[in-house]
Amino acid sequence: MKYMYQLELKVRDYECDLQGIVNNANYQHYYEHTRHEFLIQHDISFAKLHDEGIDFVVARVEMAYKTPLKSGDSFLSVLNLTQEGLKYTFHQKIYRLPDMKLCNVGRFDCVVLDHGKLCRNDELDVFVASLQIGN
Amino acid sequence: MKYMYQLELKVRDYECDLQGIVNNANYQHYYEHTRHEFLIQHDISFAKLHDEGIDFVVARVEMAYKTPLKSGDSFLSVLNLTQEGLKYTFHQKIYRLPDMKLCNVGRFDCVVLDHGKLCRNDELDVFVASLQIGN
Amino acid sequence: MKYMYQLELKVRDYECDLQGIVNNANYQHYYEHTRHEFLIQHDISFAKLHDEGIDFVVARVEMAYKTPLKSGDSFLSVLNLTQEGLKYTFHQKIYRLPDMKLCNVGRFDCVVLDHGKLCRNDELDVFVASLQIGN
Amino acid sequence: MKYMYQLELKVRDYECDLQGIVNNANYQHYYEHTRHEFLIQHDISFAKLHDEGIDFVVARVEMAYKTPLKSGDSFLSVLNLTQEGLKYTFHQKIYRLPDMKLCNVGRFDCVVLDHGKLCRNDELDVFVASLQIGN
Repeated sequence: MKYMYQLELKVRDYECDLQGIVNNANYQHYYEHTRHEFLIQHDISFAKLHDEGIDFVVARVEMAYKTPLKSGDSFLSVLNLTQEGLKYTFHQKIYRLPDMKLCNVGRFDCVVLDHGKLCRNDELDVFVASLQIGN
Repeated sequence: MKYMYQLELKVRDYECDLQGIVNNANYQHYYEHTRHEFLIQHDISFAKLHDEGIDFVVARVEMAYKTPLKSGDSFLSVLNLTQEGLKYTFHQKIYRLPDMKLCNVGRFDCVVLDHGKLCRNDELDVFVASLQIGN
Repeated sequence: MKYMYQLELKVRDYECDLQGIVNNANYQHYYEHTRHEFLIQHDISFAKLHDEGIDFVVARVEMAYKTPLKSGDSFLSVLNLTQEGLKYTFHQKIYRLPDMKLCNVGRFDCVVLDHGKLCRNDELDVFVASLQIGN
Repeated sequence: MKYMYQLELKVRDYECDLQGIVNNANYQHYYEHTRHEFLIQHDISFAKLHDEGIDFVVARVEMAYKTPLKSGDSFLSVLNLTQEGLKYTFHQKIYRLPDMKLCNVGRFDCVVLDHGKLCRNDELDVFVASLQIGN
């Protein structure tokens, strides 16, 4: 399968909890960082949008935990992005390196808020459409 | 609706991100802390179980973000627990205080691993059965 | 010894790392939350100040780790505040409950930035002076 | 100045707080991750040591905040390590990239606990001595 973006990261020991594995909530951090790096690579800054009163927020999350990441593990965080009306959905996965064992599958439904109000965002729509054509 | 457990918590400023609202991943922290406090109240220690080689792990998460929590907000974190075979499901919600505005709805499917192997756990089964009778 | 403010908190399991003890960085979170709660109790909001372009920032930190906090521990986070010129210093300690074993000693030197520029802040100066008289 | 180890990292948006800058406690995370990566590069695993009952713990921290890191910033985290009796001291700095503006200066005094008891550790002593000769 092809992905629009992939980012290689490494587990940091402070991200592991007393079970000796990466704490569940940190996968959400990994996924968020991957989304923001993907967007910034396409000149869309989450922080800059916020300063303009536009917030790109997560409305719904699903994550399936398959294999836990541990201290010392490196991993590949991949994503695809689709749009359906006002909803932008990031389809994300985390694979352990180098064996490409699937660790986590995530789905993040996001929406755009302009000064707190649900809306379309032309910049994002054009961007997502360009991605679709590209694939 | 009745809940088996509820915990009042308060947003800490470091949990807010540059959008000025609680970062998405922190809801997972709030929910985890609520589950562990609920279990410990019933003499089931997540940390002690781990020392015995038994890990109670999250297999699947769903969260819907309704209203963002902000700096200074207090909130009520509530839960119910059901069991279906090897799967223990925590149904959790977060309500802002004092207006009881629904902020987040979560569902956490958990399983028990005994030294890494999926299994039943009598202690937990008896506990969950006792909860069902009680409600 | 007398303290200007004290806050009772409880360790959350996700704050513990793979050594089974609270990760070092989380003490800084406990201390920050204590400072902000202390200030808010006196109607000084860290978040509101930021919205007005005034940031109360930490310039220097010292922390001594005496006894590690563990899963299940409750603790008392206490503070005193002194001022010397442009420098506001929080003297903070964390004691385990109920045995009042000293866990951590911290010292946080803070300064006020008005739109990024070091300055005095009358509101804070009056506040700190009022504390001194009170003790 | 020469450093025994340096690691390039990038700010993740979730590490920024409502002031729009990296939250103070995260510098401690950056420094910890740098220390662990440095040790692992020399085949000393923090996690593996813990499993053998040996914990390398921070006893004292000093950090001076010079320039805040922001969303989008990359930085260089550098360290030197010295030993004095039972105390291992990491001298660490964080420089913003690419302008090498000094952001933070840290000093971390660490000790070795063997099953909770302060002790020497031959492996670490030989390692640190080898570093001294090398520089």
